[in-house]
Amino acid sequence: MAQQHLEPTDPTAGAPPKLSTAVEQGGPPTGDALAGYLRAQATEFLRALRLHRETGTASSVEESVDAARALRRSARRISGSLHTFRPLLDADWSEEMRPELAWLSGTLGLEHACEARLDRLLLALHRLSGSTPFPAQSLTSDSAGSGPPAPVTPERGNLTVGAAKAGALLERQLTLARTRAHSTALQALGSSRFHAVADKVAVLASEVPLTPAAPTTDLRALAAAAEDRLLAAAAALPLVTAGHPYNAEALVHGLSPDPAPHPQDGPWHQVRLLLRLHRYAREVLYGGGAPVDVRLLAAGQALNRHRDASEAAAAAASAARTPRIAPATAYALGVLHADQRHEVEAARFAFQQAWQKQTVGTP
Amino acid sequence: MAQQHLEPTDPTAGAPPKLSTAVEQGGPPTGDALAGYLRAQATEFLRALRLHRETGTASSVEESVDAARALRRSARRISGSLHTFRPLLDADWSEEMRPELAWLSGTLGLEHACEARLDRLLLALHRLSGSTPFPAQSLTSDSAGSGPPAPVTPERGNLTVGAAKAGALLERQLTLARTRAHSTALQALGSSRFHAVADKVAVLASEVPLTPAAPTTDLRALAAAAEDRLLAAAAALPLVTAGHPYNAEALVHGLSPDPAPHPQDGPWHQVRLLLRLHRYAREVLYGGGAPVDVRLLAAGQALNRHRDASEAAAAAASAARTPRIAPATAYALGVLHADQRHEVEAARFAFQQAWQKQTVGTP
Repeated sequence: MAQQHLEPTDPTAGAPPKLSTAVEQGGPPTGDALAGYLRAQATEFLRALRLHRETGTASSVEESVDAARALRRSARRISGSLHTFRPLLDADWSEEMRPELAWLSGTLGLEHACEARLDRLLLALHRLSGSTPFPAQSLTSDSAGSGPPAPVTPERGNLTVGAAKAGALLERQLTLARTRAHSTALQALGSSRFHAVADKVAVLASEVPLTPAAPTTDLRALAAAAEDRLLAAAAALPLVTAGHPYNAEALVHGLSPDPAPHPQDGPWHQVRLLLRLHRYAREVLYGGGAPVDVRLLAAGQALNRHRDASEAAAAAASAARTPRIAPATAYALGVLHADQRHEVEAARFAFQQAWQKQTVGTP
Repeated sequence: MAQQHLEPTDPTAGAPPKLSTAVEQGGPPTGDALAGYLRAQATEFLRALRLHRETGTASSVEESVDAARALRRSARRISGSLHTFRPLLDADWSEEMRPELAWLSGTLGLEHACEARLDRLLLALHRLSGSTPFPAQSLTSDSAGSGPPAPVTPERGNLTVGAAKAGALLERQLTLARTRAHSTALQALGSSRFHAVADKVAVLASEVPLTPAAPTTDLRALAAAAEDRLLAAAAALPLVTAGHPYNAEALVHGLSPDPAPHPQDGPWHQVRLLLRLHRYAREVLYGGGAPVDVRLLAAGQALNRHRDASEAAAAAASAARTPRIAPATAYALGVLHADQRHEVEAARFAFQQAWQKQTVGTP
């Protein structure tokens, strides 16, 4: 129905050569295109792993981070394709592979998530404190309730000191979490569990366990099913509310006793995952020559922002439960929590705006 | 230019008879229409005062509140008209009268403002605590840092207890402020200063000190000048920013050291006052037969909401500076402050939406 897209009008679109198998073949994409895509992603995975090992000890932190990101990137794509095109792949192999890939990308993603969360929260605190950045590092955190004497009169400076102390507290907590995540990731990469996954991916790079019928099976029905799951989940979201600015929905449970991430966020997180699966399925179909859908991109970015703000808000609320913090610190964390919950609401609005314009067509 | 409006198409619009002088006369409204309006408002003032005195001791609180509101209502209208149509009135009389009327409506308005602020904050706390209202009254406030033992596990219940304590603290502080405002208002109404104002208003009810030229002077130029001041002030507002939902502007100084009401709110409060003056000027021109301008109404309501939310946010921040409150209380007040600052932002958005559609024409 959109077969002309399989022959991209712009062959210089920068797709890695290995991903363009489906395009070169012409005709409807079949299991062969899936095999090509999986082989390419597996090769990417192995390349990233080699790079990570090389950079592990001597090289720059940045290169190591890039390598870990590339590892996660291909692990997610392999895992997502295994899910969407499950009937075309050896069932036992697939069922064994997916949870291992999920474990790997989850473990490798934690460190980066902690870092990004801290950045987001400190940036928000700066914004909320007016234009002058406060010296977060110069103040000790106040978990013992006895911070340094405020350098300003209590009446005027209370709130700023609270912001600085909140920043220091978050920095301590999230840096600790990041350090732990780093150790866990290093341990994971040295574990036999990881070596087993890596071995399987190495096999996948040359041999994709397709079912006998797969090489000639049209992929589009399965891709369409993935898209239908996305559309159904998005349709179930409260988009009418989200489309009304300042609906104050995201903060409704801002002071509710449940310390877990807001349950209302769940369906949005789910749509984020389904949107990702849809995107990967498009990659498989178009073999790397997929036209960029800016609205799909905008919707995905809004949902990423939604997830980030949701987790940052939870981190602020969690920090506020630290025993013996000063009231000014707790106040600043309350403001910060509400600010991030409004970011959640803003992200939902942005998603609604992008989605409204969306004319997602099965390729 | 819009003279046809001076003969309203709907004479049953419910205007009190005394206000329709200008309409009955036909032709452009002159100082005579102003005199008629001022006499009518002065009569309203005296009627409300009589009612207030009658209800002062025996009758229901509600009737007393209504009478005080009616007093304020006409005091504001007399004061506003004195300002807008100043060149048509005896200068000495006018300059003596206005500050006294401002003092009166300010003093009488405080009690109601405290009550409305508390209602707004408690309602917001309920909303933020989820659907179950918390028992604010059943918990003692925690200014001594030793509230009752939490009836729930600290992990889960911390925030809810904080919300309840914050509610109790606000209730105590704002009820105290309201009680003080009530006493001040009673004292004011018994003062010789008040009796002097009331005497002047009694004279105004029969004799308006117009300048010799006023009875034949067209009022529209002065009304247009009042409107121009409104338009200029509104044009200077950051309406482009306000028109972008979730611009996060209102909370920018959420943790800044300045405990005073946000300076960024000032220009909006000013536009609110100018919009009111414009509305009163329309009342004078149309003599009570002014067609209801729903957009003007929406803009005014948005600015009222802006003012209310701004003051509620300041009250939450102020309560957070109470010495020795529990961290959970401070956290809840921080969330509440941010929530109300977002209400401020929402009100600006609503004003921008109403104003955008606005085609304010000089009548």
